[in-house]
Amino acid sequence: MKVDVIISADHINEESLEGKTVVVIDMLRATSVITTALANGAKKVIPLLTVEEAFDMKEELKSLGESVLLGGERRALKIEGFDCTNSPLEYTSDVVKNNNVVITTTNGTRAITLSLKADEILVGAMINAKAIVDKVKDINKDVVFINAGTNGEFSMDDFICSGYMIYLLSKDKEHDLTDIAKTAKLIYKSNENIIDYIKDARHYNILKTLGLEADLNYCCQKDIIKSVPRYDKNKKSIVI
Amino acid sequence: MKVDVIISADHINEESLEGKTVVVIDMLRATSVITTALANGAKKVIPLLTVEEAFDMKEELKSLGESVLLGGERRALKIEGFDCTNSPLEYTSDVVKNNNVVITTTNGTRAITLSLKADEILVGAMINAKAIVDKVKDINKDVVFINAGTNGEFSMDDFICSGYMIYLLSKDKEHDLTDIAKTAKLIYKSNENIIDYIKDARHYNILKTLGLEADLNYCCQKDIIKSVPRYDKNKKSIVI
Repeated sequence: MKVDVIISADHINEESLEGKTVVVIDMLRATSVITTALANGAKKVIPLLTVEEAFDMKEELKSLGESVLLGGERRALKIEGFDCTNSPLEYTSDVVKNNNVVITTTNGTRAITLSLKADEILVGAMINAKAIVDKVKDINKDVVFINAGTNGEFSMDDFICSGYMIYLLSKDKEHDLTDIAKTAKLIYKSNENIIDYIKDARHYNILKTLGLEADLNYCCQKDIIKSVPRYDKNKKSIVI
Repeated sequence: MKVDVIISADHINEESLEGKTVVVIDMLRATSVITTALANGAKKVIPLLTVEEAFDMKEELKSLGESVLLGGERRALKIEGFDCTNSPLEYTSDVVKNNNVVITTTNGTRAITLSLKADEILVGAMINAKAIVDKVKDINKDVVFINAGTNGEFSMDDFICSGYMIYLLSKDKEHDLTDIAKTAKLIYKSNENIIDYIKDARHYNILKTLGLEADLNYCCQKDIIKSVPRYDKNKKSIVI
């Protein structure tokens, strides 16, 4: 199995993903939110780029008799008229069960949109890393870990999350790792307590300054969720 | 000073380099060759993409009464009709003194061509890292370390070389490092004996398989050369 990492949605070469498994990672906080919402019983998660698309989708689903929850953030704050922010802690079972969750996320949605040529698009974070890796092994095709990044830039948090997944993947079998995949794994191996590394990340510090430490502590936990969210190209939704 | 790293010439956003210092790194082996040739007395180094351009340039310079040496490689082997391969050990004082050196390099030349909007383009490697860093400090503008990479891909060797330079740059003053710059520095700090890290690099192993260990050992030495090659946009040449 070939194992690669792409450090930003800006660097995706769509053709190169054909026949492969993609794992989209935006651990602070979009893919942690998606994973949590689905594990807690949400019917599906619909990732959209803009607030306008989210409101339109809510109307469309309501007209079909579906219940809808709007989630997301702009500059880490709740969007007017939305139900939830981008804090995974808000997506409890009480809130999401049997609901359709529409979330607006720029980096994560872009990464998914640019990955449509892949055979399978999984959505992962630290909190479900082991489950993702087990699924990647089952599928047994070349895999690319796509770090959504922050505004097109490399993000330390997504990188070490990829490194942890590659470490798990390589535990019982040697795979063909690119230089960047080897480096991500090495960063994880040198920082198994991932906060030691992430504490220097720009995005982590922005969230910390905003008082979102509870979110950070939640998102940095390993393997607390067994669900494997995957993007269903026909339904244009993420499901488990 | 803002400090950034670009992991492949493919990822260069030309406009973003305006007003900045760029350091182009292709340590195995193009920028090690360039640094060595200039330190050993070459008049200038002209980096070109193709073998044809190199032969044309030789004719042009000869018609002006200049002496010319052709260097470079294809698949790590000497090019027919060329004087030298891409081994820095061939560019001794006896060979290069007062010569114009024309080299064909794909990754390095592309990185330079895409950096022309930068204020200053320096050409560096492990062997002259400290001299490069001292120059970057003197210039005192935001700096981007551009890793030429290998065929558009991230290369561990160029990354740790950037990390060593960022480590030196940050020794006596804190700068504003991007996440990728912090990660490069961390990789260096965890592998001060850089061979420990580079030994897993794909490119390193290709060169090793070809029996080029003497070159690898030479290129992995730190700070043995004090010269700072810079690209002169008017002369379209690298000089010191």
